[in-house]
Amino acid sequence: MLTKEQLDDHWEKIYLNHISIDCVVFGFHEGQLKVLMLKSNNEEAWYLPGGFVLKEEPIEEAANRILKERTGIDEVFLRQFHVFGDPDRSKFHNEIYKDNSFFNQRFISIGYYALVDFVDVTPMPDAFSELCTWRDLDDLPAFQLDHEHIFRTALDTLRLQLNYQPIGYSLMPQQFTMPELQKLYETILDKKLDRRNFQRRILGFGILNKLEETRKGGAHKAPYLYSFNLENYRAALKEGLQGGW
Amino acid sequence: MLTKEQLDDHWEKIYLNHISIDCVVFGFHEGQLKVLMLKSNNEEAWYLPGGFVLKEEPIEEAANRILKERTGIDEVFLRQFHVFGDPDRSKFHNEIYKDNSFFNQRFISIGYYALVDFVDVTPMPDAFSELCTWRDLDDLPAFQLDHEHIFRTALDTLRLQLNYQPIGYSLMPQQFTMPELQKLYETILDKKLDRRNFQRRILGFGILNKLEETRKGGAHKAPYLYSFNLENYRAALKEGLQGGW
Repeated sequence: MLTKEQLDDHWEKIYLNHISIDCVVFGFHEGQLKVLMLKSNNEEAWYLPGGFVLKEEPIEEAANRILKERTGIDEVFLRQFHVFGDPDRSKFHNEIYKDNSFFNQRFISIGYYALVDFVDVTPMPDAFSELCTWRDLDDLPAFQLDHEHIFRTALDTLRLQLNYQPIGYSLMPQQFTMPELQKLYETILDKKLDRRNFQRRILGFGILNKLEETRKGGAHKAPYLYSFNLENYRAALKEGLQGGW
Repeated sequence: MLTKEQLDDHWEKIYLNHISIDCVVFGFHEGQLKVLMLKSNNEEAWYLPGGFVLKEEPIEEAANRILKERTGIDEVFLRQFHVFGDPDRSKFHNEIYKDNSFFNQRFISIGYYALVDFVDVTPMPDAFSELCTWRDLDDLPAFQLDHEHIFRTALDTLRLQLNYQPIGYSLMPQQFTMPELQKLYETILDKKLDRRNFQRRILGFGILNKLEETRKGGAHKAPYLYSFNLENYRAALKEGLQGGW
């Protein structure tokens, strides 16, 4: 068993001071939106997956490493969205951290968000947690520290980006129906959209290919299948859905 | 004169380790776009305005303080756009810094960009520079460190945001003509735009009020004057120019 001083020394030696990374990992599957959260050992304290930056590690690699440690997956859509830098944001309350000087310094946290199909993920707790799990957005526990603010900022960013960036490539199957794609938007926005307006607007962006096949089976008229037009999709990621000037 | 140890101690005592702020300050006026740069004492070395975060200072306040120190202005449109975190990005080459351990640590830099009317600004050098001045975008000197990358990322961000966010409120006079507004877009994008397409598209966003008055004087037909519709402008800042779903 390491002494407190040895433990402090361990963190100090490996990681940069003052800098942390927090990840808001949104999980979507068939009309459900969840967020990945950890529960502390022996207490009802929930927080977002996060970690620190190794002395010689690029920050993007740190974010990917942290995400992989918690989810088992890499090459995920993972993006910086905001830096959280209030001086009093990082007062740890967890008993484990309380007497550790590394954890008791001020941390400026770089927020990343990711969007994954939660069926692909096997959540894994870290050393301070007994549980790493998907929580429904309409059944969230109380968050530790400023993690609710970080989560809300990520959700606001994701919703705003729906207005000018394409979404869904990593979340939808290769072929999908218009109602399935609409469901993704409705789930993220947490509201119903008008079917005809949605179809008109999304088709107007030119990011979909209408396929020859229809979805077989079911009592109703077979719905058309679509796939993403990747060339246009990537251009829209770069220039915005309405194109450039 | 302070010894090297005293100088190091001074920086270490006041500022957080490992964290810096770099500001890309774009200056626009009558069809000219410039960027604020500093020239080191006694060498032909140019860099962006920047600084560090005080031990108990929120990062937004730090960015505003740094900008005010260099420009004399505050309450400016100033926005985080990216964090630069490569481990080898912060190798200082300036003689002043070379033997100072504070400057020789790894810095992760939070990039902010600002957009101002350069006529409003009196640039002021910092302790390490003999010159703080506006440089034309088509006549830029070589940048120190990764500052060219920071500048390019800010410019790309600004150009992308033109596709989905309104711009110009802090840069245009209260009343302006359509060609004057088009000139702002053309200057930032560094390309000519079609007059009729520009007018149709910008009017379609609903962020302009067409005024009763026209611009008097000049040999041609007096052009119509416009002002920003602030309510719609602010909504578009929040939801994007094409509105929400």
